[in-house]
Amino acid sequence: MSGARNLAPFYVHGGRVAEARAVFGGENWIDLSTGIAPHAYPVGETGLARLPESGAVAALEAAAGRAFGVPAGRAVVAVPGTDLAMRLLALLMPGERPAVVVPGYGGHRAAWPAAVPIAWEALGQGGHDLTILASPANPDGRRLDPVSARDLLARGMLVVDEAYADPAPGLAAMDDARLVVLRSFGKFYGLPGVRLGFVIAAPALADALRALLGDWPVSGPAVTIGTQAYGDTAWQVEQVRRIGDAAVALDAVLDAAGFAVSGRAGLFRLVAVPGAGRLFRHLAERAILVRPLADQPDRLRIGLPGDAAAVWRLADALQEFKR
Amino acid sequence: MSGARNLAPFYVHGGRVAEARAVFGGENWIDLSTGIAPHAYPVGETGLARLPESGAVAALEAAAGRAFGVPAGRAVVAVPGTDLAMRLLALLMPGERPAVVVPGYGGHRAAWPAAVPIAWEALGQGGHDLTILASPANPDGRRLDPVSARDLLARGMLVVDEAYADPAPGLAAMDDARLVVLRSFGKFYGLPGVRLGFVIAAPALADALRALLGDWPVSGPAVTIGTQAYGDTAWQVEQVRRIGDAAVALDAVLDAAGFAVSGRAGLFRLVAVPGAGRLFRHLAERAILVRPLADQPDRLRIGLPGDAAAVWRLADALQEFKR
Repeated sequence: MSGARNLAPFYVHGGRVAEARAVFGGENWIDLSTGIAPHAYPVGETGLARLPESGAVAALEAAAGRAFGVPAGRAVVAVPGTDLAMRLLALLMPGERPAVVVPGYGGHRAAWPAAVPIAWEALGQGGHDLTILASPANPDGRRLDPVSARDLLARGMLVVDEAYADPAPGLAAMDDARLVVLRSFGKFYGLPGVRLGFVIAAPALADALRALLGDWPVSGPAVTIGTQAYGDTAWQVEQVRRIGDAAVALDAVLDAAGFAVSGRAGLFRLVAVPGAGRLFRHLAERAILVRPLADQPDRLRIGLPGDAAAVWRLADALQEFKR
Repeated sequence: MSGARNLAPFYVHGGRVAEARAVFGGENWIDLSTGIAPHAYPVGETGLARLPESGAVAALEAAAGRAFGVPAGRAVVAVPGTDLAMRLLALLMPGERPAVVVPGYGGHRAAWPAAVPIAWEALGQGGHDLTILASPANPDGRRLDPVSARDLLARGMLVVDEAYADPAPGLAAMDDARLVVLRSFGKFYGLPGVRLGFVIAAPALADALRALLGDWPVSGPAVTIGTQAYGDTAWQVEQVRRIGDAAVALDAVLDAAGFAVSGRAGLFRLVAVPGAGRLFRHLAERAILVRPLADQPDRLRIGLPGDAAAVWRLADALQEFKR
């Protein structure tokens, strides 16, 4: 037996069976290195009865990085949801004069409460050293093009929330030390309860974020499901087709009822309607939930109907509202 | 239709179908309030295809609080694992002169790197305004009794990691504004991949922690599985019996091989063995992983074998080492 084996990992945490197998070989390992009960509460899912091993998290991050087209030299950090990740990022990079684009996702202002709200049109003005925005924007679907991104990065740090960018690479494929990109697993893959997202950043910032997240940043199901899904290009192509079909059906329903679409992303439409609160209640009374916007009383955001029955119920409810 | 309905939650986030049903009634809701794809990546588990609703997280926290015996007036906050929660707590309560008990869990020192390491015997000395320890202690199983806890709380803040306390109430049942208790779901319930823990604290600290965690602190499986398990007293009783049986078997194996147990908690034994690294390698070469300790070269921590086959393999390996 060689004395050159690296046993240091086993002194840090228990549960490292994959690493033990790599060092010692052997099969049918018995794990007595943790204080975890060997009899699990009965649930029918894999990935829950073991701590995610560090190699498995690294494989998930690699699969996600390939799916996003992240360049070599940039780090990909798995996080238990981008909502939490943004709040941790705000601790690591508060900015001296931060700005957040409005209208936008409320979570950005919750994470950076000191940020100055600015309009999309004012991007790059005001001497802000940190800018936070979503691309595609939520709720209006605007996108930050790479040329404008480069221009903003010449002025300071830039956090781009690409929660709705999948499956496109977007700015996650860009290489700039002042750029931080957030990706969300749950939206495109339809599994938000997994709580999985990614922060793509320069290695130094990624290291600081990892230190805050600790050694088991995401759940077992997040690791197994995420690794599989990001590598499943056949399903991704099929999903793009399904999303496209659902969006065509939604656009037809909105058009037939005479509603103007004022913004769009792959997974939602922003509808212009005076007194949007009245339409919100009309739909809710028919058990259809849409998204009203506190800062835009003449807009509703409407997600994609999942099947023909949902399309028809929405169509009927909108026609009834117009009468 | 009454104008007194509270519609404010629907302006904050989409996906609030349970609240929509409570406000508007109706059945068979169509949720178009999110930008989440209505077609999910195919996985066979419930709780993944929807965001956990705030009411469901509150129900989980209530079930856990009942299981821990948390007094009224104390807050219970669900967190995605106590390892992450400790690092967030350290940001909220760094302490002026923090102390962490050693030997102990490495995560405590990772969360409070500025803390002074102190021995259990030195608890209460040194003028520390914040003390972090585990009870039962990891790896030696010592417990902080309520009288000593009260004494420490008279001197400052106290963080008690009760990861190995289940199913006993422990100090989670104590009522003191300077006390923070951490609980871990995965160990007693054998499901660490769920990433679920709890912080029991005074309401003001709990609010600050919630602000850091954001609106979806834990995964869908964590909510569904945790809520069920904490209310399942029949299974808990059965688990205590199983753990007790496994510990009796482990103690017999250790005793037969002539190893002295120098510490114990429900889910592990601390074994005294000169040159513990040699026994670690001996066991690993037989595909049995145990936990060596960097700061205690004459100790190994051994978890519970899950079945008779594991008991026999461990017994044979230990006998072989002794020969």
